[in-house]
Amino acid sequence: MIWNTNLRWRLPVACLLLEVALIALFGVFVRYDMDADPHWVQEKVIKNLSTDLENEFYYRYPSFQDVHVMIFVGFGFLMTFLQRYGYSSVGFNFLLAAFGIQWALLMQGWLQSFDGRYILVDLENLINADFCVGSVCVAFGAVLGKVSPVQLLIMTLFQVTLFSINEYILLNLLEVKDSGGSMTIHAFGAYFGLTVAWILYRPNLHLSKERQSSTYHSDLFAMIGTLFLWMYWPSFNSAISNHGDAQHRAVINTYCSLAACVLTSVALSSALHRKGKLDMVHIQNATLAGGVGLGTVAELMVLPFGSLIIGFVCGIVSTLGFVYLTPFLESRLHIQDTCGVHNLHGIPGIIGGIAGAVTASIANIDLYGEEGLAYAFGIERSKLNWSPNTQGRFQAAGLFVSLAMALAGGVIVGVILRLPFWGQAPDENCFEDAVYWEIPKEPKSTALRSEDSSIKPPEP
Amino acid sequence: MIWNTNLRWRLPVACLLLEVALIALFGVFVRYDMDADPHWVQEKVIKNLSTDLENEFYYRYPSFQDVHVMIFVGFGFLMTFLQRYGYSSVGFNFLLAAFGIQWALLMQGWLQSFDGRYILVDLENLINADFCVGSVCVAFGAVLGKVSPVQLLIMTLFQVTLFSINEYILLNLLEVKDSGGSMTIHAFGAYFGLTVAWILYRPNLHLSKERQSSTYHSDLFAMIGTLFLWMYWPSFNSAISNHGDAQHRAVINTYCSLAACVLTSVALSSALHRKGKLDMVHIQNATLAGGVGLGTVAELMVLPFGSLIIGFVCGIVSTLGFVYLTPFLESRLHIQDTCGVHNLHGIPGIIGGIAGAVTASIANIDLYGEEGLAYAFGIERSKLNWSPNTQGRFQAAGLFVSLAMALAGGVIVGVILRLPFWGQAPDENCFEDAVYWEIPKEPKSTALRSEDSSIKPPEP
Amino acid sequence: MIWNTNLRWRLPVACLLLEVALIALFGVFVRYDMDADPHWVQEKVIKNLSTDLENEFYYRYPSFQDVHVMIFVGFGFLMTFLQRYGYSSVGFNFLLAAFGIQWALLMQGWLQSFDGRYILVDLENLINADFCVGSVCVAFGAVLGKVSPVQLLIMTLFQVTLFSINEYILLNLLEVKDSGGSMTIHAFGAYFGLTVAWILYRPNLHLSKERQSSTYHSDLFAMIGTLFLWMYWPSFNSAISNHGDAQHRAVINTYCSLAACVLTSVALSSALHRKGKLDMVHIQNATLAGGVGLGTVAELMVLPFGSLIIGFVCGIVSTLGFVYLTPFLESRLHIQDTCGVHNLHGIPGIIGGIAGAVTASIANIDLYGEEGLAYAFGIERSKLNWSPNTQGRFQAAGLFVSLAMALAGGVIVGVILRLPFWGQAPDENCFEDAVYWEIPKEPKSTALRSEDSSIKPPEP
Repeated sequence: MIWNTNLRWRLPVACLLLEVALIALFGVFVRYDMDADPHWVQEKVIKNLSTDLENEFYYRYPSFQDVHVMIFVGFGFLMTFLQRYGYSSVGFNFLLAAFGIQWALLMQGWLQSFDGRYILVDLENLINADFCVGSVCVAFGAVLGKVSPVQLLIMTLFQVTLFSINEYILLNLLEVKDSGGSMTIHAFGAYFGLTVAWILYRPNLHLSKERQSSTYHSDLFAMIGTLFLWMYWPSFNSAISNHGDAQHRAVINTYCSLAACVLTSVALSSALHRKGKLDMVHIQNATLAGGVGLGTVAELMVLPFGSLIIGFVCGIVSTLGFVYLTPFLESRLHIQDTCGVHNLHGIPGIIGGIAGAVTASIANIDLYGEEGLAYAFGIERSKLNWSPNTQGRFQAAGLFVSLAMALAGGVIVGVILRLPFWGQAPDENCFEDAVYWEIPKEPKSTALRSEDSSIKPPEP
Repeated sequence: MIWNTNLRWRLPVACLLLEVALIALFGVFVRYDMDADPHWVQEKVIKNLSTDLENEFYYRYPSFQDVHVMIFVGFGFLMTFLQRYGYSSVGFNFLLAAFGIQWALLMQGWLQSFDGRYILVDLENLINADFCVGSVCVAFGAVLGKVSPVQLLIMTLFQVTLFSINEYILLNLLEVKDSGGSMTIHAFGAYFGLTVAWILYRPNLHLSKERQSSTYHSDLFAMIGTLFLWMYWPSFNSAISNHGDAQHRAVINTYCSLAACVLTSVALSSALHRKGKLDMVHIQNATLAGGVGLGTVAELMVLPFGSLIIGFVCGIVSTLGFVYLTPFLESRLHIQDTCGVHNLHGIPGIIGGIAGAVTASIANIDLYGEEGLAYAFGIERSKLNWSPNTQGRFQAAGLFVSLAMALAGGVIVGVILRLPFWGQAPDENCFEDAVYWEIPKEPKSTALRSEDSSIKPPEP
Repeated sequence: MIWNTNLRWRLPVACLLLEVALIALFGVFVRYDMDADPHWVQEKVIKNLSTDLENEFYYRYPSFQDVHVMIFVGFGFLMTFLQRYGYSSVGFNFLLAAFGIQWALLMQGWLQSFDGRYILVDLENLINADFCVGSVCVAFGAVLGKVSPVQLLIMTLFQVTLFSINEYILLNLLEVKDSGGSMTIHAFGAYFGLTVAWILYRPNLHLSKERQSSTYHSDLFAMIGTLFLWMYWPSFNSAISNHGDAQHRAVINTYCSLAACVLTSVALSSALHRKGKLDMVHIQNATLAGGVGLGTVAELMVLPFGSLIIGFVCGIVSTLGFVYLTPFLESRLHIQDTCGVHNLHGIPGIIGGIAGAVTASIANIDLYGEEGLAYAFGIERSKLNWSPNTQGRFQAAGLFVSLAMALAGGVIVGVILRLPFWGQAPDENCFEDAVYWEIPKEPKSTALRSEDSSIKPPEP
């Protein structure tokens, strides 16, 4: 098969068509929610609000910006560890996320913010759109280096759609707690991406093996991504929590879990190397597993030491996964997981889901207080026969639904992406920016010379 | 002419004199506004405020920090794309911005926060100073690599002064809306800088041509700048908007515009390359044009789909500008625009100004509500005969005033900077850090060796 | 002596033991404070709070995240300037900070947030834990490149303990003002680290001299650290200030001081170079001294021009220190200060402490207002015989206590770290990542090739 990677018409047409469609749909459907509408002045009087601070904006804006940084700088730079794929990692992540957030505003809007005529958007919608795209960034990690930007746009289109439906089922029908998205974002994104990678299996990928590693500086660029993800994860897990103590608690729990996770990741990384040396891949990735694992229980009463335990376990499991599971997946299951998303988002996501089911099923009035329990689980709203036990079982059901949706969706999207005309690169040109990017020529003398030193030509 | 680039006395003297003058002026003129003064405790009682949260600090601090990051990391790193000018890009941007914010606090203070005796500063002054310096950073992009740090300090001194006067005319006399500064910051900064670059035209700049391109890693450093600008632009456009719905709306609009802009930038970048490849310059710059174009209308009722349209257009126009207009400007108009600020800030700034005039002139009570309209345009304060039509015409006038001020000011400052004793580099040493910086010698072996591998000396 | 740098058992065992101990202690002692507890719903009724915004979370969360970034990205990347020590700079800083914040939550908790049975943590505890770890990051700068991660964990364990005791003495017994920690964080951290470096003096460190310098790109990575520290320093100095005007004022003061400091650092850097060139080391470090120097007085009435003066002085002193003092310390006092923490944190910290004593001793009712004075210095609480003079003397005492604790503690910890079995590297392998990290092999062709250009093998 001849591979044509020239995207001159396919990529522009895809981008422009999608954007024109988005504009049309936004024109018909999207308006500002009351908090962002000039009628807010009157609304304040009606609701008897004494201050503009009661505008949802001031509750969530700092968290929103942190989440935004995680999606664009965090995920984007985390994937620059490959020696020759930095432009694509950052650039394609930028493209798919920019498209994805617009489509997510519509999909999530129709399902959750539709007033019968319009989708009314406010800051919470923007955060949820970022969350949704986060799951696409996770899946991107599984297929990194092996797909074209056109394929990524298609994958984003479908994945955002499926994500929104899955999220609707979990949050609105099953009414599970999942404020940081262990199930809806991480487990769903990871298994969706892995399934796509499985369908897109490239038997001759070893031809690109030499580029599937890092360089000294590419690893430092990746650490920028790691650290911004790590630092802002408390914002991620608390961004859409209930006002007040729930946001506060989610931050404390996530902070604790992530700190513990760093220590066990470092411990395992060293223990599993024959000379006791640390591996950058583990430091870049496994240290984040504590944030993933805490996604479901973030705002629940796990107590700080419970958070530490989750982080402790996730760091160990994730590092073990990088060492033993990733090679196994590739050799036995034919799943080529470029970034090891199975170890960072897959298993920790499942751990998070299970932790959520357990934590919910042991909720009680001693821990939460009567009003606190009602507020935390939204009992007063609809659930008359609510019990911690039921909540726990619904949480577990939510995990299974997410996994099932991810696998089924991944198969469908994978099959579509296998079609040969999306501009994908041949096996020997994977992990290579030059396929889709104009690359600068390196300066003649690789060394940067000080103007004082004269560089002599090498003698023969 | 002999060029002396040794700044040993000129730069220190300039810095120290300016700083001593600033300290003296601050000592005479600058005091804390009530929100930052210990008398706030009493003020709360007088104003009957129930909570410290009503302190302006809590409304604007997150936005302020985001804007601060845009000025120092955003602009600083955006310009590191040049292979041999990273120190200067980040370092001189740091220097001029640090000087500029102090001078802007005074200039803007005298014109807008003067109580007859003192300039009373609070957080809004800090944000406005950052904004003012933003316009200097834009102009810096036009002359990048061709001027000395002494010239930059002089340019900053004059540009901040002119900016403050222009801003006063627009905001206080014409009473235009320009919350994100399409006109006052971007169009003004770009055309000011381009005029200076025109006066400083270097006919033999081709002697430095080899350094006027990027390397693989310098492009990744530049993406750090791009992404922090892109992500925090919603904060930029909303930082000094009215409390409540206006800030909220400005964020939603900017978010939408920027997302759309990424898709059209990518589309055009690919379509304009003979092999359909993407160009890093476009991804680094044109993707931001949507934020510039939305600067004037950010808090107005453009609706989300209006924002998408502005972003859509700006991405296209900006990318076209990089491909066709920049070469034209250099060859025909003798304007050497190093960073393409005309494409990122100039044209999108004009688009933003026009969009503002149009949006204002169609404002009506249906869209805003009666109170909302009054609040959004500050009608109650002074304008008895206010009409949308008048507002629209004043907006257009504001754009013309900004452009006129930029061109006139640019000529004057350009002529001053042409004087031969500011330490500028000769044409063959442009875009070169070693002129003004101590550069580290590269390690002998360029490759980083693992301690396991022995490096043999190259055989003759 | 034979040096064994294989950490295969020592590092994992240290990490796992510490983390297990932390989990046990958290389980016994740590609970949520009321603001982060589900009983907050009832608390609001009891305290008659009308809104969730009165939760401490909303006062401090943006500042917390900024401080968090300073600790992990700021300090981490600031130290990547070394050509071959980027992994360790970022990675070990990550490790020690992640461990340190957990231990600090306990130590500071027992001393300051203990209700007799539990340590009740809220966001302020997290900020204080970050602060405490900041002082360890400072000390890390003094020993950078010369210690193993096991030594760093031990140093962190002891330093956090001593920091917490010292902080308790200053804040609770002497009741000094030190909101940005000039004394408790910077001076303490610097002199502690310098004392440890003095005990760990390596007479043959010149064998690693070639790696104790930067490369072009490592200096740019370090600028990421510098800028995030610089930009977010206003958050650092205001994060735990009193609500309202104090936080607001601390931000304005720090912003001013840092801006002034940039100009004098640049001036001195150029003036002290024989060709007037700038030195990246000064730009990376001395520009931050203004933030350190303002740490004690940040929320006091220094007035903006007072802040400028402090920044002015700190920039000069710090740059002079790098040029003259660091070589002197190494050659005469046998203190090898890798990052020059004496110039960035040591002297400016002392300047800050002195400025605090002076500013406090001239406090008066004219400046602060009666209630403002009482609120700023917490007079109403306990101090009946309070006078500005007493406060000033207590401030000075606080500085001496901090220095004494740092020197005594540094000696003890230094002696422990001198023991030969912690995995430290020999003198000829300092500043080298390959000792503790798996390093990627560099790609065969160092140049990144465009697919269009064919690379011919070099002819003999």
